[in-house]
Amino acid sequence: MILVVKSGGEKALPEWKACFAEFAPGLEVRWWDDPAVDPAQVDYALVWEPEPGRLARMPKLRAIFGSGAGVDSIVADPHLPKGLPLVRCVPEEATQRMAEFVCWSVLALNKGARRLALAQARAAWDYFEPPYAAAERTVGIMGLGAMGMRSAEVLRAVGIPVVGWSRTRKSVAGVECFAGADELPAFLARSEVLVCLLPATPETRGLIAAPLLARLPRGAGLVQVGRGVQQVLPDILAALDDGQLSGAVLDVFEQEPLPADSPAWAHPKVIVTPHVASLPSRRERARYVAGCIARFERGEPLPNLYDPERGY
Amino acid sequence: MILVVKSGGEKALPEWKACFAEFAPGLEVRWWDDPAVDPAQVDYALVWEPEPGRLARMPKLRAIFGSGAGVDSIVADPHLPKGLPLVRCVPEEATQRMAEFVCWSVLALNKGARRLALAQARAAWDYFEPPYAAAERTVGIMGLGAMGMRSAEVLRAVGIPVVGWSRTRKSVAGVECFAGADELPAFLARSEVLVCLLPATPETRGLIAAPLLARLPRGAGLVQVGRGVQQVLPDILAALDDGQLSGAVLDVFEQEPLPADSPAWAHPKVIVTPHVASLPSRRERARYVAGCIARFERGEPLPNLYDPERGY
Ligand SMILES: NC(=O)c1ccc[n+]([C@@H]2O[C@H](COP(=O)([O-])OP(=O)(O)OC[C@H]3O[C@@H](n4cnc5c(N)ncnc54)[C@H](OP(=O)(O)O)[C@@H]3O)[C@@H](O)[C@H]2O)c1
Ligand SMILES: NC(=O)c1ccc[n+]([C@@H]2O[C@H](COP(=O)([O-])OP(=O)(O)OC[C@H]3O[C@@H](n4cnc5c(N)ncnc54)[C@H](OP(=O)(O)O)[C@@H]3O)[C@@H](O)[C@H]2O)c1
Repeated sequence: MILVVKSGGEKALPEWKACFAEFAPGLEVRWWDDPAVDPAQVDYALVWEPEPGRLARMPKLRAIFGSGAGVDSIVADPHLPKGLPLVRCVPEEATQRMAEFVCWSVLALNKGARRLALAQARAAWDYFEPPYAAAERTVGIMGLGAMGMRSAEVLRAVGIPVVGWSRTRKSVAGVECFAGADELPAFLARSEVLVCLLPATPETRGLIAAPLLARLPRGAGLVQVGRGVQQVLPDILAALDDGQLSGAVLDVFEQEPLPADSPAWAHPKVIVTPHVASLPSRRERARYVAGCIARFERGEPLPNLYDPERGY
Repeated sequence: MILVVKSGGEKALPEWKACFAEFAPGLEVRWWDDPAVDPAQVDYALVWEPEPGRLARMPKLRAIFGSGAGVDSIVADPHLPKGLPLVRCVPEEATQRMAEFVCWSVLALNKGARRLALAQARAAWDYFEPPYAAAERTVGIMGLGAMGMRSAEVLRAVGIPVVGWSRTRKSVAGVECFAGADELPAFLARSEVLVCLLPATPETRGLIAAPLLARLPRGAGLVQVGRGVQQVLPDILAALDDGQLSGAVLDVFEQEPLPADSPAWAHPKVIVTPHVASLPSRRERARYVAGCIARFERGEPLPNLYDPERGY
């Protein structure tokens, strides 16, 4: 059984091999561009941003694994083999790391962490009363999937009020849940800190723009950990400048790496992070993929399947 | 009944007055340096860093309230009236804010937040794998009082393993508790991130120095939110430079404001914050002090009393 891997660059292959040797000893792990691999012999692929058309040239392929939770870079391939299962990579460590990052971001906004960092850079003892105790601002989570749910749980545990929004209505203890486009305005009106954990789909593209931001309570915070295509960066910066937003943590961008001349870098109310919100270790991802393959080989259903109808 | 206030500067008096008007309408609230106040008429004092000898000149004084949780700046007064109750200010909001700050700090260390901030300052997309999932490092809390207990609770809720250390042994669900000087080495050996929430006393002065740091697991993190006199800053910086410590969040310093030429400011592994870990709002502090006064007037016991025997 052959698994080809395109994730982390060729230098990551030895680590992938070592991890799979532990969790799936029978699996032959090869690099995606290894010229010695016959595409007709490949059973499984673990990929991030595969070149369009490449997966279609593997006739025996039985399942595709994304190496992250979002598979938008994979389904962007117009030749993606139809009917093959495409599994999003969501080991427990990924949802936990995301929840930690969201928690850190929300606390950073409530405590004025960007102002603290700018003061440190000037060696200035800029004493100020931290803007908010965390319990004073309700966090609204857009997207109550694997990532959003665990984030909600962790925020609640810290004592932070949470509301949520998703396509179909969810039921979460202690979290008021809104659903669908109709209820988006009511959800936004409650979100004093907005966290985006939506997948990149045609519906969510460009969503975080002036009209949405205008519906938030004045002075709201924003944590964007979904996908860059969901946001209109100039609208976010304008909302920060006019006070509609008080601060933002942006981890994803339409263009990554974020260009050095982007005004986001130096903005006094923006914390920029380089798409690091939730990167599970290769070991945990290999464990997860190995577990999926074992189940699949036994004829059991796969978890976290991409649904082409929904688009995520 | 007269309460004199020295906290936040004279400019804060109107806010104190408004808050006490809400929670203790009968109380006359006056500024500490108001020449029209007869010291012989003062019943209560709410103070931060009072000038030595001043409280002793208030013969009718019945109780002293610190305006923070640590009262070391008050008991430093050699003429402090003996036998008068001295109440530390620990409204629930203060312990909650501290727990949030500790949580933010621990996550900041685990996610490499200082490196992220330095990269942002250079407009550099410095992608790296976040050093730790929070569950991978045990946090050791020195001081399991009001602040340490709530911090332990919040960290546990986020999924972080916690051990604790105090003078007398505590029992906390899910937290292994060490006690006394004898068990300090065993506690330190377990603390992959050390959080200091001890009071400033002769025993804790200079505690966070080379010998203690050497007992931590190599590459440990440090969160210092106790008092500056507890640390030897050059030892901390040396431990960071030689890799014994991997990062630190320092909120308190022996000299505050931290001088502009302190090497801590620019150190690539240090997050400096200006003693803001837990500042409850004046409203919550006034509510707390008003509640204490009401209880005291009814002859009920006061909470969070300073104990001169223990020194905290
Ligand atoms: N920054 C990072 O490091 C990083 C890492 C991992 C993931 N992510 C992002 O996080 C996203 C979420 O991951 P996940 O594993 O939680 O995905 P998921 O389990 O598929 O959850 C997606 C959630 O979004 C909701 N949703 C989708 N389209 C919607 C729409 N048009 N209107 C309202 N709600 C909609 C879904 O609603 P239903 O529940 O009704 O289906 C679901 O609750 C990923 O797609 C990716 O963009 C970012
Ligand atoms: N940075 C900030 O913004 C900020 C704000 C507020 C407070 N603080 C600091 O936090 C400290 C703690 O506040 P708190 O309200 O939690 O105080 P607390 O309730 O009096 O608790 C103090 C804790 O420290 C332990 N302790 C004291 N001396 C010790 C020793 N020699 N060895 C071992 N353990 C010892 C005590 O042990 P026992 O339980 O056995 O008595 C207790 O668990 C304050 O004193 C202050 O220094 C900082």
